[in-house]
Amino acid sequence: MSNSLYLGLVHYPVYNRKNEIVTTSITNLDLHDIARSCKTYGVKTFFCINPLESQNILMSKIKDFWQTDAALKFNSDRVEAFKILQYSKAIEDAKKMIMNQEGYDPIVVTTTAMVVDNQIAVNDLVEIQENINRPILLLFGTGGGLVKDIHDSVDYTLLPLNGVDNYNHLTVRSAVAIYLDRFSSEKYRRNYGYSSSVRKGKS
Amino acid sequence: MSNSLYLGLVHYPVYNRKNEIVTTSITNLDLHDIARSCKTYGVKTFFCINPLESQNILMSKIKDFWQTDAALKFNSDRVEAFKILQYSKAIEDAKKMIMNQEGYDPIVVTTTAMVVDNQIAVNDLVEIQENINRPILLLFGTGGGLVKDIHDSVDYTLLPLNGVDNYNHLTVRSAVAIYLDRFSSEKYRRNYGYSSSVRKGKS
Repeated sequence: MSNSLYLGLVHYPVYNRKNEIVTTSITNLDLHDIARSCKTYGVKTFFCINPLESQNILMSKIKDFWQTDAALKFNSDRVEAFKILQYSKAIEDAKKMIMNQEGYDPIVVTTTAMVVDNQIAVNDLVEIQENINRPILLLFGTGGGLVKDIHDSVDYTLLPLNGVDNYNHLTVRSAVAIYLDRFSSEKYRRNYGYSSSVRKGKS
Repeated sequence: MSNSLYLGLVHYPVYNRKNEIVTTSITNLDLHDIARSCKTYGVKTFFCINPLESQNILMSKIKDFWQTDAALKFNSDRVEAFKILQYSKAIEDAKKMIMNQEGYDPIVVTTTAMVVDNQIAVNDLVEIQENINRPILLLFGTGGGLVKDIHDSVDYTLLPLNGVDNYNHLTVRSAVAIYLDRFSSEKYRRNYGYSSSVRKGKS
């Protein structure tokens, strides 16, 4: 039985601007922002998923720096966040690592800014996990987003984040933060939404 | 009567790591991420608040590029997002610009990762705006966050974003995204939280 949450930032297979399937390169700031969001919202491991060995080396260099004494002195919060960061060659490898760690296959869930078939809301996902008691692997695409085949092959896809108008172009860093906040809000404060009984202004 | 939302990213007065009051420099990526979140969630103007003329020039250069034909060809979504970005020397100037534009003084609201006096929840703020019918100016601090005097001088301060454990070190880019999502969810989907009647898995 496991209600753990895992997150994967996918660099392949994703679309580029021309709708071609590509491998994107790792962005230093993605790692920082997303590691901190993951650490804040209790994600167990943040997988940086990229098939290229050169990118594995790049990520390791960044990660290694954030384990040094210099880094610890400079900003211990970042050191703490980077501890949950882990390289993975492919989505399948991340799934295997979760299986090994938890003893259960994860429920694999994709995110997208698009409308695709059978998308579910965040609270649905929380309910599903409560019923199934398996870990979740939540996947985010870089570049122009995860390719269709990936959405088709996973267990669920979350509904896109809709803003106020038609503009819907959040960065992946922002999208991760919002989905994690929604998931955590649904999971730990179900039925309370964001409401609070505190209601005092300043005079 | 106005229910507009404005956002200010404050570079002074904020704390540094040593709790000294400083001016931080503008970060290119803050502008990109936050402009896109603001545009997604219907923020009318995103004020980049910094007292230094050199930083005004820097911001203008970035903004000017995102108005060129080259930028439009490269990524029209970013061009769209940057249209709502505006420089402001100080919080007071941003307030005046809103007053001029709307005919009403804004309700000024700060955010913080700290616990301070009389913090309110996002849904409280939505209710307050519905009752008062004035624009909101939502302020975020860079660096180590807004100084105490600013929190003391504004109308309201929002409750901090709490994660799962004690770790609470989101980047300002992530915090902006989450607060805007919460505000928008409360304002436009009140009582619905993130729930959805859609509940279909993939087979």
